[in-house]
Amino acid sequence: MRIAIDAMGGDHAPECNVEGALAAAAEWKDTQIVLVGDEQRLLPLLKQGGGTVPSNLTVHHAGEVIEAEDEPVKAVRRKKDASMVVAGRMLKEKQAEAMISAGNTGALMTTGLLVVGRMEGIERPALAPMIPTLDEAGVLALDLGANMDAKPEHLAQYALMGSLYREKVMGVKNPRVGLLNVGTEPGKGNELTKLAFPLLQELPINFIGNVEARDIMLGNCDVLVCDGFAGNILLKAVEGTAGAMFKLLKEQFTQNMRSKLGAALLMPQLRNLKGKLDYKEHGGAPLLGLSGLVVKSHGSADGNAIKNAVRQARVALQNQLVESISKEISGK
Amino acid sequence: MRIAIDAMGGDHAPECNVEGALAAAAEWKDTQIVLVGDEQRLLPLLKQGGGTVPSNLTVHHAGEVIEAEDEPVKAVRRKKDASMVVAGRMLKEKQAEAMISAGNTGALMTTGLLVVGRMEGIERPALAPMIPTLDEAGVLALDLGANMDAKPEHLAQYALMGSLYREKVMGVKNPRVGLLNVGTEPGKGNELTKLAFPLLQELPINFIGNVEARDIMLGNCDVLVCDGFAGNILLKAVEGTAGAMFKLLKEQFTQNMRSKLGAALLMPQLRNLKGKLDYKEHGGAPLLGLSGLVVKSHGSADGNAIKNAVRQARVALQNQLVESISKEISGK
Repeated sequence: MRIAIDAMGGDHAPECNVEGALAAAAEWKDTQIVLVGDEQRLLPLLKQGGGTVPSNLTVHHAGEVIEAEDEPVKAVRRKKDASMVVAGRMLKEKQAEAMISAGNTGALMTTGLLVVGRMEGIERPALAPMIPTLDEAGVLALDLGANMDAKPEHLAQYALMGSLYREKVMGVKNPRVGLLNVGTEPGKGNELTKLAFPLLQELPINFIGNVEARDIMLGNCDVLVCDGFAGNILLKAVEGTAGAMFKLLKEQFTQNMRSKLGAALLMPQLRNLKGKLDYKEHGGAPLLGLSGLVVKSHGSADGNAIKNAVRQARVALQNQLVESISKEISGK
Repeated sequence: MRIAIDAMGGDHAPECNVEGALAAAAEWKDTQIVLVGDEQRLLPLLKQGGGTVPSNLTVHHAGEVIEAEDEPVKAVRRKKDASMVVAGRMLKEKQAEAMISAGNTGALMTTGLLVVGRMEGIERPALAPMIPTLDEAGVLALDLGANMDAKPEHLAQYALMGSLYREKVMGVKNPRVGLLNVGTEPGKGNELTKLAFPLLQELPINFIGNVEARDIMLGNCDVLVCDGFAGNILLKAVEGTAGAMFKLLKEQFTQNMRSKLGAALLMPQLRNLKGKLDYKEHGGAPLLGLSGLVVKSHGSADGNAIKNAVRQARVALQNQLVESISKEISGK
């Protein structure tokens, strides 16, 4: 299988992207890794270690870069030779079976829509990252920002796609699918969730009903369905609260000699705690509902995160994720 | 001034309600406190300490109670002699100038709408609790659950009411009002927030633009405007994440002898941390947009929380909150 990596996207590009690509190529000899980006920057990085470049790793030149601050739609339309857009085109034209990017999220979603294209029968593709949970299994949440407004039918498609991804790529049998809501009883919620509830009940998934934001971290579901606006609020509230608490802990723990000593004794536990809530460890988020496999890596992805995204893409390809979703959605 | 307290609502009713009422009556001699509820349960509690009941504290008998698990609309319609409903009627009939309840939130909102009545010109009253922030000033957030679906005009009314409350009752001059959104740039968001943004810009308030969920705890605004669904997701995500982190801390800190010793040394700081994130300390949440002043105390309110709610109600009455909102909304 061939996997295209946008070599120029992300805060630590292209260095970490090259590092991740080298590691992936070394581990999975059956996989062709294609680094898409500026040859003149990539080739020296590939040869830096002095070792030989693995035969399953190649560079595909792309002269432009979409920056983090670029306006997504404009950038994708105008920068036709951008590494992200070229990778998308390779996917569209079957020169690659999957693409990975740690670049501008909005631009990647636009590339998905305009370059790769939607799957037949899907109205709105969805971005599906993991939210960390106390049991460390995490919950796959979608949509987290691809579409701000959703209709009940969109939520039903998210549920189906998320359930398939969680089962086929993440190996969770019969994943529990929950609907993000303000209370657990059926009939709770706004117009959107009230109308979506019966649609989710009819799907061939393990729908466990409404789930409250306060219980997400307890790991009470494997897939969480929500509109992009509510999902964004949820994810950023979780991140913001965890960040604020770490800040508070730090302030409190450096208050005096006694507290500093206490904190020093607890250092292994505090590190452990931070690791448990680290989003990067969960790898990339798939953009579901496209005609090809697109994985979004975190903007701050390091080499290991890029390698993890390749791992995810491999599993998705091996388990024919895109074909399975297509079959469920349109029967094709 | 006269303030009616629903003596039977809340997890620790009527004991804590009586305790709070006694403390309030003792502190504010100019205020008539009326405990509304079952005389036969309240009178013995009032006399329990052996002291005399202050002359500014009376009991108004109400024979029924709305329970936490009651269906709000049905309960308010059928239990006409419920302590909450009777307190609402006293407010409507000017026998009291404010009412406080720690009972069933849905039932209190229904009492507000059906018994107390909306203010002229207000389409949707809003519940406005405080969300804790790192600087401990907190942010007044509305609507947090009175209405699941909102129109742009409702958000504009929330903004105006919240700004007035924060200034008049909480003493924040020219409070910064933010719109909960998925990004800070104007033009971000779903249909609702995109349409609400220009309406908020036209109001006579200090509108600072869009605010992201991740920054709320940093205290970057004094009033946060959102629809009831998104607000509920935000509040419960903050509560859930803080709760999950305390659980993780506890697990980590009791791992071995060394970590237990560290935790023991840090005990004052850990207590402090919990205090900073405690919702109860912020007192009650007003239900804004009604023709009278209604304050919701937390369901787990203790005597001190009830007393704090009386303090808030007094300040609101002294500063003519309801009249000020009415003037801004309908010019009357």
